[in-house]
Amino acid sequence: MDVGALSQALRDLTNSGNVFFLLMGAILVFSMHAGFAFLEVGSVRKKNQVNALVKILVDWGASTVMYFFIGYFIAYGIRFFSPAQVLLGDDHGYQLIRFFFLLTFAACIPAIISGGIAERAKFWPQFFAGAFFVGFVYPFFESLVWGKTPLLGQPGSWLAKLAGVPFHDFAGSVVVHSLGGWLALPAIILLGPRLKRYVNGKSQVIKVSSIPFLALGSWLLCVGWFGFNVMSAGELTNISALVAVNSLLAMVGGILVALFVSKNDAAFIHNGALAGLIAICSGSDVVHPIGALIIGGIGALIFIKLFEFETEVLKIDDVLGVWPLHGVAGTWGGVACGIFGQKALGGLGGVSLLAQVIGSLAAVVYALVLGFVVYGILKSTVGIRLSEHEEILGADLSIHNIEAYPEEAL
Amino acid sequence: MDVGALSQALRDLTNSGNVFFLLMGAILVFSMHAGFAFLEVGSVRKKNQVNALVKILVDWGASTVMYFFIGYFIAYGIRFFSPAQVLLGDDHGYQLIRFFFLLTFAACIPAIISGGIAERAKFWPQFFAGAFFVGFVYPFFESLVWGKTPLLGQPGSWLAKLAGVPFHDFAGSVVVHSLGGWLALPAIILLGPRLKRYVNGKSQVIKVSSIPFLALGSWLLCVGWFGFNVMSAGELTNISALVAVNSLLAMVGGILVALFVSKNDAAFIHNGALAGLIAICSGSDVVHPIGALIIGGIGALIFIKLFEFETEVLKIDDVLGVWPLHGVAGTWGGVACGIFGQKALGGLGGVSLLAQVIGSLAAVVYALVLGFVVYGILKSTVGIRLSEHEEILGADLSIHNIEAYPEEAL
Amino acid sequence: MDVGALSQALRDLTNSGNVFFLLMGAILVFSMHAGFAFLEVGSVRKKNQVNALVKILVDWGASTVMYFFIGYFIAYGIRFFSPAQVLLGDDHGYQLIRFFFLLTFAACIPAIISGGIAERAKFWPQFFAGAFFVGFVYPFFESLVWGKTPLLGQPGSWLAKLAGVPFHDFAGSVVVHSLGGWLALPAIILLGPRLKRYVNGKSQVIKVSSIPFLALGSWLLCVGWFGFNVMSAGELTNISALVAVNSLLAMVGGILVALFVSKNDAAFIHNGALAGLIAICSGSDVVHPIGALIIGGIGALIFIKLFEFETEVLKIDDVLGVWPLHGVAGTWGGVACGIFGQKALGGLGGVSLLAQVIGSLAAVVYALVLGFVVYGILKSTVGIRLSEHEEILGADLSIHNIEAYPEEAL
Repeated sequence: MDVGALSQALRDLTNSGNVFFLLMGAILVFSMHAGFAFLEVGSVRKKNQVNALVKILVDWGASTVMYFFIGYFIAYGIRFFSPAQVLLGDDHGYQLIRFFFLLTFAACIPAIISGGIAERAKFWPQFFAGAFFVGFVYPFFESLVWGKTPLLGQPGSWLAKLAGVPFHDFAGSVVVHSLGGWLALPAIILLGPRLKRYVNGKSQVIKVSSIPFLALGSWLLCVGWFGFNVMSAGELTNISALVAVNSLLAMVGGILVALFVSKNDAAFIHNGALAGLIAICSGSDVVHPIGALIIGGIGALIFIKLFEFETEVLKIDDVLGVWPLHGVAGTWGGVACGIFGQKALGGLGGVSLLAQVIGSLAAVVYALVLGFVVYGILKSTVGIRLSEHEEILGADLSIHNIEAYPEEAL
Repeated sequence: MDVGALSQALRDLTNSGNVFFLLMGAILVFSMHAGFAFLEVGSVRKKNQVNALVKILVDWGASTVMYFFIGYFIAYGIRFFSPAQVLLGDDHGYQLIRFFFLLTFAACIPAIISGGIAERAKFWPQFFAGAFFVGFVYPFFESLVWGKTPLLGQPGSWLAKLAGVPFHDFAGSVVVHSLGGWLALPAIILLGPRLKRYVNGKSQVIKVSSIPFLALGSWLLCVGWFGFNVMSAGELTNISALVAVNSLLAMVGGILVALFVSKNDAAFIHNGALAGLIAICSGSDVVHPIGALIIGGIGALIFIKLFEFETEVLKIDDVLGVWPLHGVAGTWGGVACGIFGQKALGGLGGVSLLAQVIGSLAAVVYALVLGFVVYGILKSTVGIRLSEHEEILGADLSIHNIEAYPEEAL
Repeated sequence: MDVGALSQALRDLTNSGNVFFLLMGAILVFSMHAGFAFLEVGSVRKKNQVNALVKILVDWGASTVMYFFIGYFIAYGIRFFSPAQVLLGDDHGYQLIRFFFLLTFAACIPAIISGGIAERAKFWPQFFAGAFFVGFVYPFFESLVWGKTPLLGQPGSWLAKLAGVPFHDFAGSVVVHSLGGWLALPAIILLGPRLKRYVNGKSQVIKVSSIPFLALGSWLLCVGWFGFNVMSAGELTNISALVAVNSLLAMVGGILVALFVSKNDAAFIHNGALAGLIAICSGSDVVHPIGALIIGGIGALIFIKLFEFETEVLKIDDVLGVWPLHGVAGTWGGVACGIFGQKALGGLGGVSLLAQVIGSLAAVVYALVLGFVVYGILKSTVGIRLSEHEEILGADLSIHNIEAYPEEAL
């Protein structure tokens, strides 16, 4: 081959590699949604297991349609209405696979909320709320951080201007997890606790159905998370092994802190791994592995202590603890990136603590406002909660007309 | 490096990339077989769960041996009897990994049939029938579409000649799924329904054991399916993000149509995703994503309506609905490729509806004839059905001498 | 691009590809740890399922910390204390991802032992024993075969000198599996059998809890194993499809031999696949696929016959059979590589049976000595066994204060 043909062949191999790279990321994060499903299956009572499974799968369906037709355009100004030939282009369809990869992030929003409102929420209002979030609410914020919005111009513009340095959120501690967790909080508050969760002001823990399914969900999430973080590089030649090892060490920090703090509690340990992973997303590309270990450990500590405070003191019935887990540990991740990303702490630098605090708080405010508005309107119109009879019967029978173990139920 | 060394290095990297690409495809589709297993585990009664698991795993074993020694040679004229050095060649063993990838397709045939004949079929006759299909029946048809057969010469020769344009089946709606589903139909009919499935001509639904395991199976299949379709490109530099996004949208079309048509039925929704994926295999490389959404939605509609017709009106006891799911939705996929692949509908073109109809029907006829012959011979010689006593006891105890939950059974 | 820029771009793409390649390997083998967890969940009684899940996850946590700070340095002389910028280097952080990949191997040691000592071992002594093995015992042996130790100099030095040809263990039949299995044996013997496992010298089989979870574990292990073996090539351009197909055929050899020898026993068949995979690790890069089929088949035969001998004749209560499975089938794999790797048997050659026997036996002696020392000290100081009361109550309630199915337990 001559130099021209070589250049062409190398460019084509690179383009192919980019698509392969993002494809594996998309597949890995898609499999995390099975993780969301089984984490909830294990954490609810048997009579609500089917509902957990169906919610996650149909939310995925609605998310895909909304993000394909609306959300991706809001975030990145790109639509997929041209003929297939044009969509493919000469780069093997890079924008298509990027859409798929970023959809797997967007679809986390309803999946996160699902765990907080489990066991007493109506099906259809949440179906449409989730679709609205993925179609509009999430992509708008996404555009501010990662995108180029037709509405606002340059990527991350105002966040960048405010703090001098752009807000840094490599893989979405804030854009994905904190947004989801803080959107869930209003829904959980407006729904109110499950029946008999608090009796005469006293907390009465409702036992989960299955630690093995809870653990299976956690494993699926942990495994897929390496796609979530590493493939956030976007292109193969931007790959960074630092992202992988930081994710690993943050997860392990979460596991070990949960082991010691929770005194060997199986649910906290399996969720502690997730807390570590949530906290590291933002800074996984800039912190040192030892920083990641600490970030993850603190993430798990925040999750456990705040979950106990939320459910025992504030008496907010957040079934899977999605507010402390995704919401607050996500916010911590955004802030931590501004601390441990500094060169003085072994990081790559180029991050600003002020920008991280502003960006992280912006997501909190945005999510709380939107969450109260959307769920407030739904509550005062169609209603968001199952009737008492339906809740006692269980979401499986009252919504899906089937039990999780039909043969056994005979 | 000079240009010669560069060319050599680039070629080697490309060859390595091809093997890596097909390896990930093979791993993903291999993991789908766990999906087949758990889909069946969840869909049968507890007393037949072990049998479901063992069947899929040992069928995989038999398929590997048959396809390695016979089937791949029939389909592609290549054998693996040379020394390892020769097999490796200077392309990192491309034919070896291609064999592995295509084996994962071939082995779907017994896995598909397994779900239709569950809960009352004998073990060994099906073991050998599956091995025969993978060693001979499947590769012969495969050779007509994808291969170059020592018997018939050019790839897809007669199908190409008949319709002017070759029959197009990118990832096997017809070659794999429809063939499997239509082979299953004679087996299901010849076996007859499970005891007490129809009483005095009235249908009595037999309850499934576990929606969570059914859902786990569906998830494993959905995740792995992206390897099934995308890696059908064969080489890394043939990768197409369009295939991935079409698979995604067809799956989602299947989910959403199943949600609305089945009125929120968990089993139909989880299988609806599969119907969409089955229907898109053929045209995933040529249709527009919006076409894929429609193809998948119609696939799920066909599956649900035909499953009800099959089991309630025709009174054919197809336990997992493999005939409407893999068979008919697969046939629909072959035909749909000839419709939505047209440039007028945003597709890439180069497909012929006539060729698609002929090819799709050819598979139906081929599978029906072979299915009735093979299962007819087996039925009239060694028998294919468990004794009434064995069926009541369950396949687990009568074949494997163990229950699915031995401790519990105490 | 000119030749210089082309060279640079190709080098960068190759480096990126190496990281991507090892990343997928690390993710696949990480997911095998979920497999270890569920294999044990299914193989123990319900009252010990939670403990199985927690052990594997926290052992992973401890392993990561120990191997990051100590083990990888012992094996390869590399530490990760430099700033993140330095760790990344200009190769996208190759040493970081290599650490992650090799950690997934190291962490198998406690995961293997866990299955043998299940249902009666104390939590914390095993936690620290596992951490010690991963931090010190495993990396020392690893350095002799694969590494360059600061203590001993050249890779595989003394093993190489002894036999003239270096000891060949491509993916760790010996370094990982046999070491783990032979370390487990002393622990199992020193612990003694579970209560009521042998009554008045008569064996009384304790029934497992769940074949579906056992099978899920086996599937996760089988799927991930292709990362274990293929990515042991270390770099993308060293990829060998022969490794993948040999792994496949050895697994299938194990499945089919287990099917026939065990007379269709579900647990043996699902573990037989693993026996085949364990046996092929060493020689997967040098033997012929037909050799691999035989190696795997013999691996399963060894496992089944020796497990029966161990538990029925020797009355050693090895719950998951990790000594015959990982230990002896691993040793067989080391030796088999020296037989079937020969050119006369279609292999690539370059291996010595004598070197393989010496290296394989060295691992046995090393593991037995270390195992008896470590568990002997632990037994005579802090104790390694639960009290009778705790064992009867179950590890879940006595260690983790929860049951596997808390709602059900009400």
